[in-house]
Amino acid sequence: MKIKVIVPITTKGFIEPTREEMVKFASKGTEIDVECLEYGTASIEFAYDEMLNAPGIIKVAERAEAEGYDGILIDCMGDPALDAVREKLNIPVVGPCRASMIYAADLAHRFSVITVLGPGCGEENLALLLGVRDKLASVRSVGIPVLALEDKGKLVSALIGESVKAIEEDGAHAIILGCTGMLGVNEDLSYALREKGYDIPVIYPVAVSIKYLETLVYLKLKQSKMTYMSPSEKERNIWEIMK
Amino acid sequence: MKIKVIVPITTKGFIEPTREEMVKFASKGTEIDVECLEYGTASIEFAYDEMLNAPGIIKVAERAEAEGYDGILIDCMGDPALDAVREKLNIPVVGPCRASMIYAADLAHRFSVITVLGPGCGEENLALLLGVRDKLASVRSVGIPVLALEDKGKLVSALIGESVKAIEEDGAHAIILGCTGMLGVNEDLSYALREKGYDIPVIYPVAVSIKYLETLVYLKLKQSKMTYMSPSEKERNIWEIMK
Amino acid sequence: MKIKVIVPITTKGFIEPTREEMVKFASKGTEIDVECLEYGTASIEFAYDEMLNAPGIIKVAERAEAEGYDGILIDCMGDPALDAVREKLNIPVVGPCRASMIYAADLAHRFSVITVLGPGCGEENLALLLGVRDKLASVRSVGIPVLALEDKGKLVSALIGESVKAIEEDGAHAIILGCTGMLGVNEDLSYALREKGYDIPVIYPVAVSIKYLETLVYLKLKQSKMTYMSPSEKERNIWEIMK
Amino acid sequence: MKIKVIVPITTKGFIEPTREEMVKFASKGTEIDVECLEYGTASIEFAYDEMLNAPGIIKVAERAEAEGYDGILIDCMGDPALDAVREKLNIPVVGPCRASMIYAADLAHRFSVITVLGPGCGEENLALLLGVRDKLASVRSVGIPVLALEDKGKLVSALIGESVKAIEEDGAHAIILGCTGMLGVNEDLSYALREKGYDIPVIYPVAVSIKYLETLVYLKLKQSKMTYMSPSEKERNIWEIMK
Amino acid sequence: MKIKVIVPITTKGFIEPTREEMVKFASKGTEIDVECLEYGTASIEFAYDEMLNAPGIIKVAERAEAEGYDGILIDCMGDPALDAVREKLNIPVVGPCRASMIYAADLAHRFSVITVLGPGCGEENLALLLGVRDKLASVRSVGIPVLALEDKGKLVSALIGESVKAIEEDGAHAIILGCTGMLGVNEDLSYALREKGYDIPVIYPVAVSIKYLETLVYLKLKQSKMTYMSPSEKERNIWEIMK
Amino acid sequence: MKIKVIVPITTKGFIEPTREEMVKFASKGTEIDVECLEYGTASIEFAYDEMLNAPGIIKVAERAEAEGYDGILIDCMGDPALDAVREKLNIPVVGPCRASMIYAADLAHRFSVITVLGPGCGEENLALLLGVRDKLASVRSVGIPVLALEDKGKLVSALIGESVKAIEEDGAHAIILGCTGMLGVNEDLSYALREKGYDIPVIYPVAVSIKYLETLVYLKLKQSKMTYMSPSEKERNIWEIMK
Repeated sequence: MKIKVIVPITTKGFIEPTREEMVKFASKGTEIDVECLEYGTASIEFAYDEMLNAPGIIKVAERAEAEGYDGILIDCMGDPALDAVREKLNIPVVGPCRASMIYAADLAHRFSVITVLGPGCGEENLALLLGVRDKLASVRSVGIPVLALEDKGKLVSALIGESVKAIEEDGAHAIILGCTGMLGVNEDLSYALREKGYDIPVIYPVAVSIKYLETLVYLKLKQSKMTYMSPSEKERNIWEIMK
Repeated sequence: MKIKVIVPITTKGFIEPTREEMVKFASKGTEIDVECLEYGTASIEFAYDEMLNAPGIIKVAERAEAEGYDGILIDCMGDPALDAVREKLNIPVVGPCRASMIYAADLAHRFSVITVLGPGCGEENLALLLGVRDKLASVRSVGIPVLALEDKGKLVSALIGESVKAIEEDGAHAIILGCTGMLGVNEDLSYALREKGYDIPVIYPVAVSIKYLETLVYLKLKQSKMTYMSPSEKERNIWEIMK
Repeated sequence: MKIKVIVPITTKGFIEPTREEMVKFASKGTEIDVECLEYGTASIEFAYDEMLNAPGIIKVAERAEAEGYDGILIDCMGDPALDAVREKLNIPVVGPCRASMIYAADLAHRFSVITVLGPGCGEENLALLLGVRDKLASVRSVGIPVLALEDKGKLVSALIGESVKAIEEDGAHAIILGCTGMLGVNEDLSYALREKGYDIPVIYPVAVSIKYLETLVYLKLKQSKMTYMSPSEKERNIWEIMK
Repeated sequence: MKIKVIVPITTKGFIEPTREEMVKFASKGTEIDVECLEYGTASIEFAYDEMLNAPGIIKVAERAEAEGYDGILIDCMGDPALDAVREKLNIPVVGPCRASMIYAADLAHRFSVITVLGPGCGEENLALLLGVRDKLASVRSVGIPVLALEDKGKLVSALIGESVKAIEEDGAHAIILGCTGMLGVNEDLSYALREKGYDIPVIYPVAVSIKYLETLVYLKLKQSKMTYMSPSEKERNIWEIMK
Repeated sequence: MKIKVIVPITTKGFIEPTREEMVKFASKGTEIDVECLEYGTASIEFAYDEMLNAPGIIKVAERAEAEGYDGILIDCMGDPALDAVREKLNIPVVGPCRASMIYAADLAHRFSVITVLGPGCGEENLALLLGVRDKLASVRSVGIPVLALEDKGKLVSALIGESVKAIEEDGAHAIILGCTGMLGVNEDLSYALREKGYDIPVIYPVAVSIKYLETLVYLKLKQSKMTYMSPSEKERNIWEIMK
Repeated sequence: MKIKVIVPITTKGFIEPTREEMVKFASKGTEIDVECLEYGTASIEFAYDEMLNAPGIIKVAERAEAEGYDGILIDCMGDPALDAVREKLNIPVVGPCRASMIYAADLAHRFSVITVLGPGCGEENLALLLGVRDKLASVRSVGIPVLALEDKGKLVSALIGESVKAIEEDGAHAIILGCTGMLGVNEDLSYALREKGYDIPVIYPVAVSIKYLETLVYLKLKQSKMTYMSPSEKERNIWEIMK
């Protein structure tokens, strides 16, 4: 099967590391193609960024379906433009926040998300829309912008600190890494928590999303076309400038 | 005070009728300016359309604030790009769906939304995000696309039919008109329902939104900047093509 | 339009300061008349007080409608007797707690109420009945009885303290003043919070309620008569002693 | 133990039949005293009636505690003035709606209330405040005013009809009689439902309330004085006319 | 009436103390018979233990009904096998956790459970299934295993400590003793809390359950047979080894 | 990897057809071993059956872990003994009801479960515990006992009928097959629904569960050991008869 992973920002530097991680978890027969946006924002940390990147995400997704890809992964924990792409396409489309939350909802009584920045309203809203709000213990942040995540040592250290607070103060029994840019740190976090006596799931969105999407493709499942109705034809002149 | 009303689609034909209705309800000292998008979609009936129009909405809103407007009304019941615009701006920004739902939540035990097309997931999701999901009796639709709403007779008749079903079958005690393109039909609907013995609020989003926004401006209230944090600076090359 | 503001207690000293604040926010064409109760309790701090004042509130409201008033504002954050008055009258009736909560629900992810005394069950119950319980971060109190609120300095200082705790510990993104006797302190609180970096809405019930009621009257909206059914005739000898 | 049952209306005709039913279910050592109001309304079918009767209920309850009664039962399914009386008194105070709902919540997946008249918002609101809203399948009404309930044949027939609809259409697995004036009909309803194959609890508020109150008295339990804080002293001139 | 109390573990030492407490609260005409399991686990502190004891509980319960008992009390706060026994039997079956929670839900705005060990997921899940999750302030534990509860001094001291935290930090207005093995400590806890100014209900499951079950038997009420449908006949060879 | 599938009943006839279906969906490297119980009940249609089979399920699961299996699938939509097994084991344990519901929660706005018999309280309770209750449109049943499911024609026809009702009357946008004994009918149901214009996910628990479990094993994820704490040592004489 052929999977298109959309890194929904304009920063090309995320393409290769993301592809490497994806390939690490994908099954043998799975072709992974990673692509970022031509026009949009350098990273996504606000609803503002999500909205500005939406048309670009849609464009890449539509082209991918036309080119015969079997599934789409929008590689950002804000699940930007997910509803729109699910409406337009007839192949399965996966958002890592939703994929991570459903796994966590099954494996633990309650989970926390450790994100990059900000008040966490976005993550809480996604949990609400997905229907698992009561399973969300808290959203915490490491206070590191997306484009500064490459300092793994600093990141892991901050993740451990916030995870322990989520467990001890907020009642979390599982941890979700809150940004798909947090690459290759899940095992260190998991190990550190076990050392502290917390043998709990650390959900790595990159890994979970690709396996979940593979399952959907494999089982010929996709989003409900009653929830995500195919848009009817009409004039959409945005494509004149988004070509 | 100066209000910018954004008709968040590319169909210019809605500008004048919308302006006329807005002016009808605005206070004397209020200047109303209505503007639609240069690039986007002809109407909004899907999440797909909302996402494609988001950058255009943001662009008009940012310019309006720079030009000294006191408040922004995004004139579509999907409240498209509302979160993004609320983040970026420091003047009050109102969405008619949210404005209508808060009024209905206070005035009635439960309310229904009568929209144009579709399964109503979007309206239900907005109620969920606003925190009033338990007050929503149902979402029903008249089965008329946005661009065919000018046939007032047909529209009123369909609205009455669906409103009565919402009341008798779904337990609605108030009705919200589900599209800002349903112009000038609220009194006919209200009268028809009273004739049937249903003396209940018919919430007209156009009217409610402009009064609500006037109140916010008047009382110097705006969206919380902790919920809607101002986006930090970063490269956003989308503006190169959205100029 | 003519508005009757009912100060639902027997303490005459609140009439004039309340009238002054109301007039400050009312539109030019609005006549404000403020009236308190002949029999009841000196202040309202318990359900016990609300119940003892209910017949008096109803009496003033019924007379006001008979005298041609266009709307009623029951000026207490417990919204005492609101359901009863909404049932009996055919003009809009507004309670400041509900009015404040709907505004806050739209403007912020979550809000707190800072009240005078007590455990806050009443405010939480009102949020539950209004359908916005999930938006309520907390109820805190300044520990000052209603009849001691005239010491503005002490009040403002306590409000700032509790608001900061509501923000930092409870996750509030907006603050509602929890007693209509907290007159003329909203700007000081708002300024102090902004100075601390919290640019969030401070909802002043007196101001919000009068504007909300004006809007209802202006748009010919009132409470749903399906939710608030008009009471049928029967013997009610309470009026023999409540004359 | 000595129990004061307050029939919270002015209709004396309910005193004796209520006393007879109460005595039927009370334990041997329990003295039951039933009293109605001097001033108030002839029956309770609206929030309007509840509010007008509240001071009278409080007055009887306060006197009963002073006279050494061990517990109070406010004999109306609207649980009128319950919060106020629970605040003021230091003996257990029971409302039949709450007592019935907690029993039904334990015994069945979901229950319906069959009331006398009206839209059922009041019963739904009580379920919400009690915390068992998700267990409430529906509120239905027999369309018979309180003062016409003495026609037992008509009442039973209507109760059977609405109960069957509650079971078959609304998913009820238990039925609560929705008015304490529905005296002596529970066995007939229960028998009729069993004949139709529905072996489910029919909750008779009069019976359940008296047993529940006896248990509270016997176990020295009463309402939490943190939830129902004792009202502080203040001027309450309402007592001048409520003597 | 004849009541069978099932101590759903294999530790015989709980039989006599439990019987003594039960008798203390039962009415005069009530015969109490206490029985533990032949095969199962020595105590219940995990879902694992509940599941291993389920067939034994069912066996004792079925025999009791056949022998003419009028009601069954499964004497463990996990309410183990309650649903199964309620399905199979046609006499009322009571679980102390549910019985305690419904009483607490009525008497207080919010309550906490103080249990023996562990994370409290089980208690929270029972509150969820019972429909009163929103009334649960917290689950706390004293950190004492069931089989070490006989040290009353240590237990009372730990209960006071955790109860005060539940009140002051979690907002509890009532306390439920979280293990039926916490025998004879409710009055000491209640007294200690009142001394600290907290006049709130301390729910003693043993006492509340027996009174609640007596009421059900007395009023001829039992679990809904629509919720708890009688199991149809089929091969169940488990009885070959559970004889 | 080696997976143990526990058919948690005593009917051997389900072993081979279940194995065949499992193998069909498993990855190449996955060894599937299917085993049923020695002592228990012939099928599971009641909580009564689940409880009677619990010790047998636990026994097989414990042995499987000891023998080096990598994951456990308890192949029944009641997810019987899931919590207990998750506590005891340190390898991932999957229940098909939870696995199916999390997939459906992501793919559709709301879903229905079409089960074999009964009122559906069990499925609703599982949705509640999993935290996705608000996504459950309804539980419907085909009225066919588990041991009569081999008549595929009759089953498919009944599934189509109930699915259409779930979609049109209950608002379902996805369908979950409600019994793991409904083998090999998912494609026929899916095809029939598409023919009627309903292009929605049909969740086949057997397929979804095995893929989900493979993912957990592959990603080294398992249930949180804070939610599912390992049971401490104690006397458990049940094993004397469950050998």
